[in-house]
Amino acid sequence: MREAALALFAQHGYAAVSMRRIAQEVGVQAGALYNYTPDKQSLLFDLMQGHMDDLLNARSQEPVCTSALARLEAFSRFHIRFHLERPQAVFISYMELRNLTPRNFAVIEDLRRRYEGELETILRDGRDIGAFHVADTKITTLAIIAMLNGVNTWYRSGGRLSLPEVEAIYWDMVRKAVT
Amino acid sequence: MREAALALFAQHGYAAVSMRRIAQEVGVQAGALYNYTPDKQSLLFDLMQGHMDDLLNARSQEPVCTSALARLEAFSRFHIRFHLERPQAVFISYMELRNLTPRNFAVIEDLRRRYEGELETILRDGRDIGAFHVADTKITTLAIIAMLNGVNTWYRSGGRLSLPEVEAIYWDMVRKAVT
Repeated sequence: MREAALALFAQHGYAAVSMRRIAQEVGVQAGALYNYTPDKQSLLFDLMQGHMDDLLNARSQEPVCTSALARLEAFSRFHIRFHLERPQAVFISYMELRNLTPRNFAVIEDLRRRYEGELETILRDGRDIGAFHVADTKITTLAIIAMLNGVNTWYRSGGRLSLPEVEAIYWDMVRKAVT
Repeated sequence: MREAALALFAQHGYAAVSMRRIAQEVGVQAGALYNYTPDKQSLLFDLMQGHMDDLLNARSQEPVCTSALARLEAFSRFHIRFHLERPQAVFISYMELRNLTPRNFAVIEDLRRRYEGELETILRDGRDIGAFHVADTKITTLAIIAMLNGVNTWYRSGGRLSLPEVEAIYWDMVRKAVT
């Protein structure tokens, strides 16, 4: 059900997809879906919360680096890899924020801020020891994440550049932008 | 009609908005809309094409700079300012690409590539004279545009930072990323 909802939301948008359409995709009666989720809003929220939980969990399992540059490099490469593997979840996580109820929005925003906070901590620590030159750690955090997210809009596996090449090019830009 | 469609598409998504709903917003009968547009697809396409035409026109009226750095700075500041003024059109231009017919998509893609080409030319010219160090001008073009587009997701007029401050911070990052 979650897979079907994810694919349909990503293709048509949350507002255009009915529970009936999701049930059709799963191959059950619409009523059967309500054994698993109270409504479509809960389904959207579960998908977005699950995506953020996966992101924070995966990040917490990455090896810990010590130098400022190594920490920033690890974050940048992790971010690209994690997001490229989940294009639909990433698309929905940005696009359907407008369709969350205020309470659900607040939960997702909190998770997103927690993730952004990890990058901001790296930038602030690096700036404090003179490894980075960053005018505003908050804005730089958002700028780096936006730049890295952009990979999802154009990267195709099997294309001109391999994933390691893409990671290297982006890491080079991130490193230069903050040093 | 275009204003109503833009606002509704941005809020609910193209697929969830009917011509009847747009007519309601305009305050006319649904049938009256068809005097102005053949269908909803044409309306979406007009909005996206109009946005790209405005972008290319505005860009062509910017003063011409000569040095590589000045050209890149002018592009970066122009991009931020132009896009911040049109959050709904920007949102739709990215989000509703999936809802264009293949023929309409090709037209919009061509306009987008023309705009990206302006930045890539700046980067290539600068690299050729040794002003920039860029591993891949195409990827760097997309990375810079993604980073600058990110301003739209968080900037609020009257917030902590003024527009000139935001422009300065982003220009600093762009400059360092390519030199």
